[in-house]
Amino acid sequence: MESVARFQSNLPTDSARTPGRSCRRLHGRFAWVTATESTTGQTGRARRGPGRNTGATRQRIVAESARLFADRGYHATGVADISRAAGLGSGALYHHMGSKEEILLEICRPHVIEVLARGEAIQCSDEPALQKLRKLARVHMEMIATRTLELRVSLRELDSFTGSNKIEMRQLRDRTEAVWDAIVADGLRRGELAGVDPLFVKAVLGALNYAVLWFHEGGALSSDEVADRIIALMLGE
Amino acid sequence: MESVARFQSNLPTDSARTPGRSCRRLHGRFAWVTATESTTGQTGRARRGPGRNTGATRQRIVAESARLFADRGYHATGVADISRAAGLGSGALYHHMGSKEEILLEICRPHVIEVLARGEAIQCSDEPALQKLRKLARVHMEMIATRTLELRVSLRELDSFTGSNKIEMRQLRDRTEAVWDAIVADGLRRGELAGVDPLFVKAVLGALNYAVLWFHEGGALSSDEVADRIIALMLGE
Repeated sequence: MESVARFQSNLPTDSARTPGRSCRRLHGRFAWVTATESTTGQTGRARRGPGRNTGATRQRIVAESARLFADRGYHATGVADISRAAGLGSGALYHHMGSKEEILLEICRPHVIEVLARGEAIQCSDEPALQKLRKLARVHMEMIATRTLELRVSLRELDSFTGSNKIEMRQLRDRTEAVWDAIVADGLRRGELAGVDPLFVKAVLGALNYAVLWFHEGGALSSDEVADRIIALMLGE
Repeated sequence: MESVARFQSNLPTDSARTPGRSCRRLHGRFAWVTATESTTGQTGRARRGPGRNTGATRQRIVAESARLFADRGYHATGVADISRAAGLGSGALYHHMGSKEEILLEICRPHVIEVLARGEAIQCSDEPALQKLRKLARVHMEMIATRTLELRVSLRELDSFTGSNKIEMRQLRDRTEAVWDAIVADGLRRGELAGVDPLFVKAVLGALNYAVLWFHEGGALSSDEVADRIIALMLGE
């Protein structure tokens, strides 16, 4: 598979990868993430003119597409399927969305950015490392519980992005993982954590992501309980 | 998402889901699995006549398809792409394979069956439960290390199967998970394991499956070492 390193030369400096650095720099990155999200959203709308119903139609297109992509996959879903599901006439879709990949990006990007932004805020808090890891896991599980379709599409279709979208989505994933790495490294340095296996971050992300296939809101366990138990299973109470 | 229970009414009785039953029944199931694998392979070849190069051509089609499906996804790969990659003229592909889904099945099914068969053999051995779980994890990681492309396709395209293929592939996945469940339940009953969180099986399968995205043969850790560390991380040494 493609090496992550291949993409890293294109990325801005990732201070979360360097444990021990001041968190002030991360606040800067956090602001950058939020600004990027906001700017892209505005640009998307501005490019097509702010018609009264454009926003609502885009939302409907994205919601119907998430359902279709989660059900049958991105590539197996045609633009005609999306138009039909969103109640749009032939050709009208492109009035609202630039391409099918733009829809995929609008499904996947916002919650990945939210997880990263909330993760960086947790990273910069003053709590002990174990508490930070519990909170990160809860945010991750909250997304799986409340945006199940979008998460399923994101986890399955990461390789369906092309060009700069592919680079950005991989970068966001790597930065999310880097937040976990940095909190563990910091916790070990400060003596708040001990004997954490270097595989912990990979293992916990795998365990959390897998929940997208089996977790049901309203089931025996809440998303917070699943998060707490997975952390306890790997790090002890 | 679709409930697994929806499919279970179609499945043969799954004795691995009933901890405490005699392993003799499992030996029966184990034999059934192996027989099915063998029969299907023979049927596939016999149906099209045992031409001298048919087997080799089928293997080439399956290998090239695995590469293409892993790279760009099942639905995004056309029959023309496969024919070109396998060096076959237009239309010749269907002389060797009944459909694109048959190719997908031939990529995914054999190693899932092998994991299940080896898992059931481990389940029926006389070793302590913790040792059985370590061995299961090693088998899982060995598959990820040696059949990376096939595993990536299997994990990503489970929802791309249709009809009876979909039922069979979900059944195989559920039965593989049931082997883990049964070993844990048996270990708890015999007092060989204590205090294992009921989420352990979901967590360990998530952690192992995630390795398909980051594990590289020849990297810092062997597949056995990754398996041992993931089990130790969750159950202690």
